Amino acid sequence: MAKRGHHVELYELRDDIRLMEHVPGRSINLAMSIRGRSGLREVGLEDEIIKNHGLPMEARMIHRLDGSTYQIPYGKKGQCIYSVGRRFVNEVLLNAAEKLPNVHFNFAHKLVNSDLDKGTMSFKNLKSGEIVETDADLILGTDGAYSAVRKQFMKRARFNYSQEYIPCYYLELCIPPTASGNFAMNPKCLHIWPRGSFMMIALPNQDASWTVTLFMPHEKFEQLTTPEKLIAFFQTHYPDSLPLIGKERLVKDYFATKPSGLISVKCYPHQAGKALLMGDSAHAMVPFYGQGMNAGFEDCVVFNEFLNQYGDHNLEKVLPAYTEYRHVDAHAICDLALYNFIEMRDLVNHFSFLARKRFDTVMHWMFPNWWVPLYTSVTFSRMRYHLCIENKKWQDRVVRKLLWSTGTAVVATGVVALYNFRSYLQKLF
Amino acid sequence: MAKRGHHVELYELRDDIRLMEHVPGRSINLAMSIRGRSGLREVGLEDEIIKNHGLPMEARMIHRLDGSTYQIPYGKKGQCIYSVGRRFVNEVLLNAAEKLPNVHFNFAHKLVNSDLDKGTMSFKNLKSGEIVETDADLILGTDGAYSAVRKQFMKRARFNYSQEYIPCYYLELCIPPTASGNFAMNPKCLHIWPRGSFMMIALPNQDASWTVTLFMPHEKFEQLTTPEKLIAFFQTHYPDSLPLIGKERLVKDYFATKPSGLISVKCYPHQAGKALLMGDSAHAMVPFYGQGMNAGFEDCVVFNEFLNQYGDHNLEKVLPAYTEYRHVDAHAICDLALYNFIEMRDLVNHFSFLARKRFDTVMHWMFPNWWVPLYTSVTFSRMRYHLCIENKKWQDRVVRKLLWSTGTAVVATGVVALYNFRSYLQKLF
Repeated sequence: MAKRGHHVELYELRDDIRLMEHVPGRSINLAMSIRGRSGLREVGLEDEIIKNHGLPMEARMIHRLDGSTYQIPYGKKGQCIYSVGRRFVNEVLLNAAEKLPNVHFNFAHKLVNSDLDKGTMSFKNLKSGEIVETDADLILGTDGAYSAVRKQFMKRARFNYSQEYIPCYYLELCIPPTASGNFAMNPKCLHIWPRGSFMMIALPNQDASWTVTLFMPHEKFEQLTTPEKLIAFFQTHYPDSLPLIGKERLVKDYFATKPSGLISVKCYPHQAGKALLMGDSAHAMVPFYGQGMNAGFEDCVVFNEFLNQYGDHNLEKVLPAYTEYRHVDAHAICDLALYNFIEMRDLVNHFSFLARKRFDTVMHWMFPNWWVPLYTSVTFSRMRYHLCIENKKWQDRVVRKLLWSTGTAVVATGVVALYNFRSYLQKLF
Repeated sequence: MAKRGHHVELYELRDDIRLMEHVPGRSINLAMSIRGRSGLREVGLEDEIIKNHGLPMEARMIHRLDGSTYQIPYGKKGQCIYSVGRRFVNEVLLNAAEKLPNVHFNFAHKLVNSDLDKGTMSFKNLKSGEIVETDADLILGTDGAYSAVRKQFMKRARFNYSQEYIPCYYLELCIPPTASGNFAMNPKCLHIWPRGSFMMIALPNQDASWTVTLFMPHEKFEQLTTPEKLIAFFQTHYPDSLPLIGKERLVKDYFATKPSGLISVKCYPHQAGKALLMGDSAHAMVPFYGQGMNAGFEDCVVFNEFLNQYGDHNLEKVLPAYTEYRHVDAHAICDLALYNFIEMRDLVNHFSFLARKRFDTVMHWMFPNWWVPLYTSVTFSRMRYHLCIENKKWQDRVVRKLLWSTGTAVVATGVVALYNFRSYLQKLF
């Protein structure tokens, strides 16, 4: 918005992340792909974040119980997603914004009230305690899954809203660099330990360490009450990771924090009066498709397109047009993210899933534009999220018909063969 | 709760409904059936409400465009639902509660805050303006679709919640008694004018008038801006109702109020600390199955059963047990209510729907316990709502298989006949 020439006041509940020693809250690494990159490209930050700091991951590395592994590539040769630190992306964005003369930061300001129709807002300055009254032509509520701006939406009539906590919690661990300062595992992969109803994943960091995330139902976390039980659990389910994490470090990290919940939020409309919800505030999702930040940055690209189309001073057209266009895709990616949890923790262990994956890969290789696998359409294309789902449903129908007609052909061939055999026998005797 | 011996403080935002001349808010008549009656029976009020004041409705009366009508019975001969006034039921309940020495009413009290774990609540007395602090062993949040108690739930972690406004509004009209003081239509029926994407219904009142409700998308309401357009709309879509309502009255009633929205609310869990949500606050639904009040009163029956099972002083067992048991049924009836809108406004016009209805009726007549139609299970039985859906799905599978095997049998018969005919021809020549 600043680059489009507008004066931007940024209000943020927390302190400036660049001045904080330890950043509270979740820190699952970001998996940056084409949609996130499109947003960064438009503000000239793609190179700084991706080329200079992103760690390319070309495949999922699946860790079996016995410690053996196999890879499932994310896309075609050369296609990859990038592991980037959440804090790093925040810092690059803040530094870039700060350089613009028409952006002004207000950290440690808590939104206490707002009239969305008038565009007025009251903030409490958390340092001084004073109440700051302000107003704007456009309020962009980009304040995350527990959005304070969205709470103002909730007071209004006809706001569709759903929040769902999935029955899975997460807790972060770490695999340090090796003694020689190298990655302890293949850093070209996102590592997954799928175990049916629970799983563990690991993403590489710039400093050759790994951010490891344990996902499982709360009951399972509650059972691991002592260091002994924890280590026994890892010996049973994640034996190959134990020497990499280190028993001492595992126990220290595990008992230092409490598992966090995972929320999925959908709403409609994303607009109310002069306010617009974007990013997690409009569509918080579970992290299993690595699309949360990507979807948020794509929101900016889409919004930018509508501003180009209708003009910056035509917000009464831009905001409804944006929300009508975007909410179907927001809903779709929330659904896809929930679905991918099943795929990651369980399906990757199934033969039929892997067979279908191979089939999709071959088909995509033969007909690159006609047969685009779901993961590819979501991660390596900007196909609208809801069309990715439609496309997958169509493919499923095609595959079903194919299997059915193959089955029928086999049976028919069998019947004809049997008939011929009978005729043959009849002639013989 | 008072009848179980507890001291009950009732806090209500509004004034005492019995003292109000005109009751604001919606007043779609209640269609009382077995679940609502079960609740009333347990507090000894079934006879007063049903036998003395309920108007039995045995069938839907469908009004075609040309004014001709046909009936679709609700159940077997003798089965009916009862039209009762919302205000009347409220008054009977309040009068009965007032007679108990351990119930105390606090009208015009607005809940402003609550600590659900401690059971403390702050109310604002809307008459005096003073803040009243109180606490309880159990907070029953039976405060409707826009529940203030539920807002306290929203502040807590891990509360699943969804609110959805359907793209349909409603507006109330009235058909007065005839000049001779009689019902203008057959009062043994709930009258429906299904018109595809919109519809009108009418329920009889004690005074021989009819409460008429117009359901349609907001765009349609917005098009009817003048008395001429309104009357033309009725002449086109509801011609037979026009002389009954009267043009003058139609215009007056229609332009006197604004159409209201319809909300559907689901949440989980229904319990938080010492608080429990019951009725619309836990499961507000669209009115198309006539189950909103019935489900709320059945909540009381179910809660009563858990109190009997675990004991009144064992709330830490009763509340979680109730919510685990009941939320699946609450979700199910919300879904069923949304589905029934499609059935009421559109499906009743389709041949396949009516054919299936007849098939179900015949099957239910032959196997009354084995084949229970969906509507019957919801309205005339206390089968758990989610099992009503399961039961319907099972029936759908049976019907599909039946159709499929009938189809196959017909084809097979044809093939055999053809084969025989060929043999016959071969022998002939």
